Amino acid sequence: MTDWGKLTAERLTEIAKCSEAGPGVTRLPFTREHADALQLIEGWMQDAGLETHLDAAGTLVGRTTFPGASQTLYMGSHQDSVRHGGAYDGIMGVALPILALKKLKDEGITLPFNVEILAFADEEGVRFPTALIGSRALAGSYDPAVLDLKDRDGISIDQAMRAFGLSPDNIPKLKRNNNRALGFVEVHIEQGPMLQDEDLSLGVVTAICGIERHSVTFHGVSGHAGTLPMRNRQDALVGASKLISYVNELAVNTEHLRATVGALDISPNVVNAVPNEARLTVEMRSADDAVRAEAAQQIEDKAKEIAETNRLTVSYDKTYAQPAQQCADSLRSPLAEAVKAQLGRALALPSGATHDASAMADLGPMAMMFVRCKDGISHNPAEYASPEDMGDAVQVLAQFIKNMAVRV
Amino acid sequence: MTDWGKLTAERLTEIAKCSEAGPGVTRLPFTREHADALQLIEGWMQDAGLETHLDAAGTLVGRTTFPGASQTLYMGSHQDSVRHGGAYDGIMGVALPILALKKLKDEGITLPFNVEILAFADEEGVRFPTALIGSRALAGSYDPAVLDLKDRDGISIDQAMRAFGLSPDNIPKLKRNNNRALGFVEVHIEQGPMLQDEDLSLGVVTAICGIERHSVTFHGVSGHAGTLPMRNRQDALVGASKLISYVNELAVNTEHLRATVGALDISPNVVNAVPNEARLTVEMRSADDAVRAEAAQQIEDKAKEIAETNRLTVSYDKTYAQPAQQCADSLRSPLAEAVKAQLGRALALPSGATHDASAMADLGPMAMMFVRCKDGISHNPAEYASPEDMGDAVQVLAQFIKNMAVRV
Repeated sequence: MTDWGKLTAERLTEIAKCSEAGPGVTRLPFTREHADALQLIEGWMQDAGLETHLDAAGTLVGRTTFPGASQTLYMGSHQDSVRHGGAYDGIMGVALPILALKKLKDEGITLPFNVEILAFADEEGVRFPTALIGSRALAGSYDPAVLDLKDRDGISIDQAMRAFGLSPDNIPKLKRNNNRALGFVEVHIEQGPMLQDEDLSLGVVTAICGIERHSVTFHGVSGHAGTLPMRNRQDALVGASKLISYVNELAVNTEHLRATVGALDISPNVVNAVPNEARLTVEMRSADDAVRAEAAQQIEDKAKEIAETNRLTVSYDKTYAQPAQQCADSLRSPLAEAVKAQLGRALALPSGATHDASAMADLGPMAMMFVRCKDGISHNPAEYASPEDMGDAVQVLAQFIKNMAVRV
Repeated sequence: MTDWGKLTAERLTEIAKCSEAGPGVTRLPFTREHADALQLIEGWMQDAGLETHLDAAGTLVGRTTFPGASQTLYMGSHQDSVRHGGAYDGIMGVALPILALKKLKDEGITLPFNVEILAFADEEGVRFPTALIGSRALAGSYDPAVLDLKDRDGISIDQAMRAFGLSPDNIPKLKRNNNRALGFVEVHIEQGPMLQDEDLSLGVVTAICGIERHSVTFHGVSGHAGTLPMRNRQDALVGASKLISYVNELAVNTEHLRATVGALDISPNVVNAVPNEARLTVEMRSADDAVRAEAAQQIEDKAKEIAETNRLTVSYDKTYAQPAQQCADSLRSPLAEAVKAQLGRALALPSGATHDASAMADLGPMAMMFVRCKDGISHNPAEYASPEDMGDAVQVLAQFIKNMAVRV
């Protein structure tokens, strides 16, 4: 009997070598490392009986079709990593459903729908200042203007794709038929500690959190730290520090909210001058858009109140907003059933990060399953998921597909 | 009758043209602008009947001697500015005592001591990573090792001085005799708003504040801003923000204390990651060393408490400490008498900034007088002292010298 977890771990160890030199895994899109990885993934797909082809966006597609089936279930994730990232983020979500299909093939199962496993080229957006081209192409939200974006060596996406043997002119033709899409299921490491805390190998995602980002700048007046009396100060950093504390306290005390001041720069930033400017970012995430909207308003109000009471002015911009995306019951229920059958319990948890599934939601129903990762660490060479947990995932994905077959 | 304030203003306007191009005044030591300024200052000195020479450290010395006088009163300040600075900081303290001596010469006054007016080359420390060579040379605290320090073009102080026609090897010979020094009096713009707030043109400095600088680094753990639950966070910036607020509140509520977090840098400093490191500086200044020491201990204790309650660690270093220097009664009393005679009131206030007087305190007694500057602004093209206020200063300095003559 195959040890699916061990096999997954072996495959991930092997493909982790398709990396630039340095700590952890660095595998960027449309590079030699990407090409090497695709060779391995293609072998995994063929081993599971899938027909493979590389599409115009650089997505490796492995397809299994069944007589009379008209609809398609999509599964997969991305092949790329961040710089000095781990061996699981993305690529594990390619390896696991391939093995689930191999297991079903070994069992001789026939399905009432086709399945496509997708290994997207670029989800992390590390090489180029964009991402998700592969998933957006399938979902019909691809914008050809992104092809002009350049990496740090001045190579455009268009150039990189052509050098990789792709024909980016054909990307718009990749859009799938919404009516024939059963949906997309992505498996990913949790990138958080909740499953570890709950002693569970797997969890079912409820929604991909909405995200809102604000750019906040407090403007004060600089002055000599020795000569400016305290009562005369208009210290932008003092204002910023009060907002930072507020954002943290608000999120700690609000259910279903995460809020972070991740970036802060001050001017003139010298030991003996009162800061006259403090520029910071506030990021709010929630699976519940109403919770996020209320927090956003409270934080903006607080920033204005702080400015007033500290004789500062504040520039406040909402720079980005993306609504929460609920996982579809049509996929989530059979997935949760399979998790519960394997573990006795299906923990529901939100995804704080965006994924290929965020883009694939434009094509049809979307769902995600998380695999426990050690200490919640990701984007780091120490990223780790155990063979046992990945073995659970293969079993659950195979059972999920069977559950779907009963429902379609 | 001479309008001393108008004459001072005219001279300062003229010498402000000895500047690099750009906004405000940029006059760095041992440059063409410095040489041009020295030509003008030498003219002012000769106009007041002073004998001039440029010493080995680049200090222009204007000396008036009287028969039988053995002691010397030193007065002056620095010729240099910061980049894009104002027309008053430093150079006004050279122009005013020259005019006071001119006034006394016009009156035909004979003094029982000699007077030297000093125009130091470099107090701001903008071109080279050191300052105060001229005053330290006279006071005997000069360290020849500084000659190897380089400007941003790689030119050492030694090279810059030689190109300026100086012989830095002779700097150690400049030390004056402590027993023959009546002391040093420096006039400077306040660089703060207290005189403006009190509606006074002049004030008498009590002491040059002691300074203490701490380098504080909070260490936490980074993580994805979307996936890391709030309760699991070890956010270094949240810890830093609490310390920043504390430092400000402590100083606002402590008499005779100024405390500033002027510099702050965080890592990784991106919108979607929890900061794992926050490095900041705390600077405390007080004319009372005991006040400063107590605040330093309170801030350090608070940093450690914040680290503990926020699951962070903290690295805490005292990087710099300089005790307060009290102004000498032997100079301060006759100066305060002269200010009171002119204005009806002699406001006593500390100097939050260091000055050439800080170094000259090693030679003998030291005192300072502040001139009101508009809105407390300095190190800025908008820096301004009015002709009327500078006229008061000339009158007061002349009277101060007469008061000294009675006491010696």
